[in-house]
Amino acid sequence: MSEGVEWVLHTCVNLSWVGRPVRSARLATFYDLPPAYLNKQLQSLVRAGVLTSVSGPKGGFTLARDPASISLLDVVTAIEGTDPAFRCAGILAAGPWGDKEADYAATCVISTAMRKAELAWRKELARQTIADVCASVERRAPGEPERTRRWLS
Amino acid sequence: MSEGVEWVLHTCVNLSWVGRPVRSARLATFYDLPPAYLNKQLQSLVRAGVLTSVSGPKGGFTLARDPASISLLDVVTAIEGTDPAFRCAGILAAGPWGDKEADYAATCVISTAMRKAELAWRKELARQTIADVCASVERRAPGEPERTRRWLS
Repeated sequence: MSEGVEWVLHTCVNLSWVGRPVRSARLATFYDLPPAYLNKQLQSLVRAGVLTSVSGPKGGFTLARDPASISLLDVVTAIEGTDPAFRCAGILAAGPWGDKEADYAATCVISTAMRKAELAWRKELARQTIADVCASVERRAPGEPERTRRWLS
Repeated sequence: MSEGVEWVLHTCVNLSWVGRPVRSARLATFYDLPPAYLNKQLQSLVRAGVLTSVSGPKGGFTLARDPASISLLDVVTAIEGTDPAFRCAGILAAGPWGDKEADYAATCVISTAMRKAELAWRKELARQTIADVCASVERRAPGEPERTRRWLS
C-alpha cells in the first residue's frame, strides 16, 4: 500500500479539525512531507469526492462532506483504487478440464475464499469514519483540535 | 498480491488429492504455468513448512502436513511474507508536537484502525484450510480428486 494512504488519513483528520480550506504546501509542512506528491494524493481525494479544492486567496483543500460520512475505506480506495489485492487470473481455464468460457473469478472456491477475506478487510475499514478517528484522538489529547487549527491557519 | 498465490493455492489442493510427491514441471503443466517460476514459489512453501521436497526418482513436492492443518493464511504468507499491507511510517513524529522516541505504529489511532482491518483479513484466511477448499470442490465435482490424481500420476 502506498505511503500516501497514511499521509491523507492524517490530513483528513487535520482538515476535519480546521474546518476551512488549507493549502497543500501548508498541509505538507505539518508532517514534513514532499509537497508535490502530497498534492497529487489530495487531488485523488478530490476526484473521489472526499475533499473539495477551493481556488482563490483563501483557497486550498477542505473536506467535501461531514467527517462522520467519510469512512477510512473511502480514503484508502481514493488512493489505492478498488481492485482487490488478490486478482483471480482464472488458471482453472488452462487446466485439463478447464472451460475457456467459465467465469472462474466468480465461481472458483479459492477465488471466493480470497474475496471473502478481502470483504472482511473492507468491512472493517468501512465501519470506521474520520469522525471516529477524531473522537478517539480527542479523548486522549483534548487540546489536539485547537492546536492543529492554530498551526494550520 | 503476486499471481503465484493463486498458483500455489490450487497446487496445494491438487497435492492434497494426489497424496504423494509430484514434480514441479508436472504441476506447472497442469495449468500451463511457467515451470521455473512455479518451482520458485513451491520452494517458498517448503521453507514455510507447508510442502516437503522429496528427492530421487519418485521425488517431487508433497504436502508437509495434513491439509486440515494448512490454512489459506499459511499459504498466502509463505508467498507474500507477513508484512502488513499498510506500513505505518510514523509521520506523527515529524509533526509540530511529534515525539521522535514514540512508537506511533503501536499507539496512533490511524495505525491501530488499519491494523484492525488487516487482522480481519488474516482471521478470515486463517479460518479456512486446504481441506475445506477440497471438501467444497468435491461437493460440487465428486470426480475431481480421482481425475486429478490420475492426471498428475
